[in-house]
Amino acid sequence: MERNVILVIDMQRDFVLPDSPAYVAGAASTVPAIARFLEYGRSRGWDIVHVVRRHRPGGSDAEIFRRHLFSDGGQFCAEGSEGAEIIDGLRPCSGDYIVAKTRFDAFYATDLEVLLRGLGTTAVYIAGTQYPNCVRSTAVGALERDWPVTVVTDCCSAATEAVAMANIADMRAMGIACVSSDEVMRENS
Amino acid sequence: MERNVILVIDMQRDFVLPDSPAYVAGAASTVPAIARFLEYGRSRGWDIVHVVRRHRPGGSDAEIFRRHLFSDGGQFCAEGSEGAEIIDGLRPCSGDYIVAKTRFDAFYATDLEVLLRGLGTTAVYIAGTQYPNCVRSTAVGALERDWPVTVVTDCCSAATEAVAMANIADMRAMGIACVSSDEVMRENS
Repeated sequence: MERNVILVIDMQRDFVLPDSPAYVAGAASTVPAIARFLEYGRSRGWDIVHVVRRHRPGGSDAEIFRRHLFSDGGQFCAEGSEGAEIIDGLRPCSGDYIVAKTRFDAFYATDLEVLLRGLGTTAVYIAGTQYPNCVRSTAVGALERDWPVTVVTDCCSAATEAVAMANIADMRAMGIACVSSDEVMRENS
Repeated sequence: MERNVILVIDMQRDFVLPDSPAYVAGAASTVPAIARFLEYGRSRGWDIVHVVRRHRPGGSDAEIFRRHLFSDGGQFCAEGSEGAEIIDGLRPCSGDYIVAKTRFDAFYATDLEVLLRGLGTTAVYIAGTQYPNCVRSTAVGALERDWPVTVVTDCCSAATEAVAMANIADMRAMGIACVSSDEVMRENS
């Protein structure tokens, strides 16, 4: 039986809002497309997993290159903080799942694989930010686990269009589908 | 520099309290010893990590052999439930860490390794329940990652003393120290 999942990656205030610690320029403009795609997925009974970055106080679980964000009492996607919240417009609904991560790849050091296998996932669709880091790492992580993977292009973002295009080209060459949400909906209609 | 960590495993109501879904007969009697050992660890600046089992609603992330606990609206260590709470007497203090897991081995599908490496952990002490499953799996997981591991015998529990003894014998043969909290305190004095 077909059981599709949509992973929505890192659509949190600390990535999406200007002046936030890890602002991704393209992220905010994808919110309407993601919201529409989630609505479509929910209407068809697809599983929705919000993958969020979440760090413990002090940042001892943060990447080496981000540890400085925690010095002098600073924080970044800190557990319970406003910055770690999923932005308005994409708030989880009842029945959605949450997976917290501390690195790019949503499969690394998380139970995402346990959850997807438990759900009986047959195909993975990826929305969120940003292309070169968490989107791509997670897409590759799903591919390595033998799930068909689709990166939904108008629902993903990067700092620049050139970065997005270069990553889409690489991922297509790996066998990861990179298509618009309109095309996904057409294919599944 | 020496940086010791104490892992306290699964000391949650659903394991410790009689009539709970996964009651471990020996667990409740270890609470005073664990509390004393945590107090000792905190007094020496050791890191404390509470490893807890936590399942999502519906139990799609639960082990195959425990899925039935979630049928008919049932639950087991469900996120936000009373049963998932750490029992009175061992409640986390400020500065303690929490790692949630869905399987026996606390390193499996969690970021425990990320956290311990970030903390600079040099040795792992294990307390909690129960010997044959989560205690042993996690001890072996730490050993595999080349940390010196000590299972603190009066702070760990099983359904019967015979099960505890058999597992202690196996673990000692692997190179995992199994000693009392008194002995740990003497060694570190």
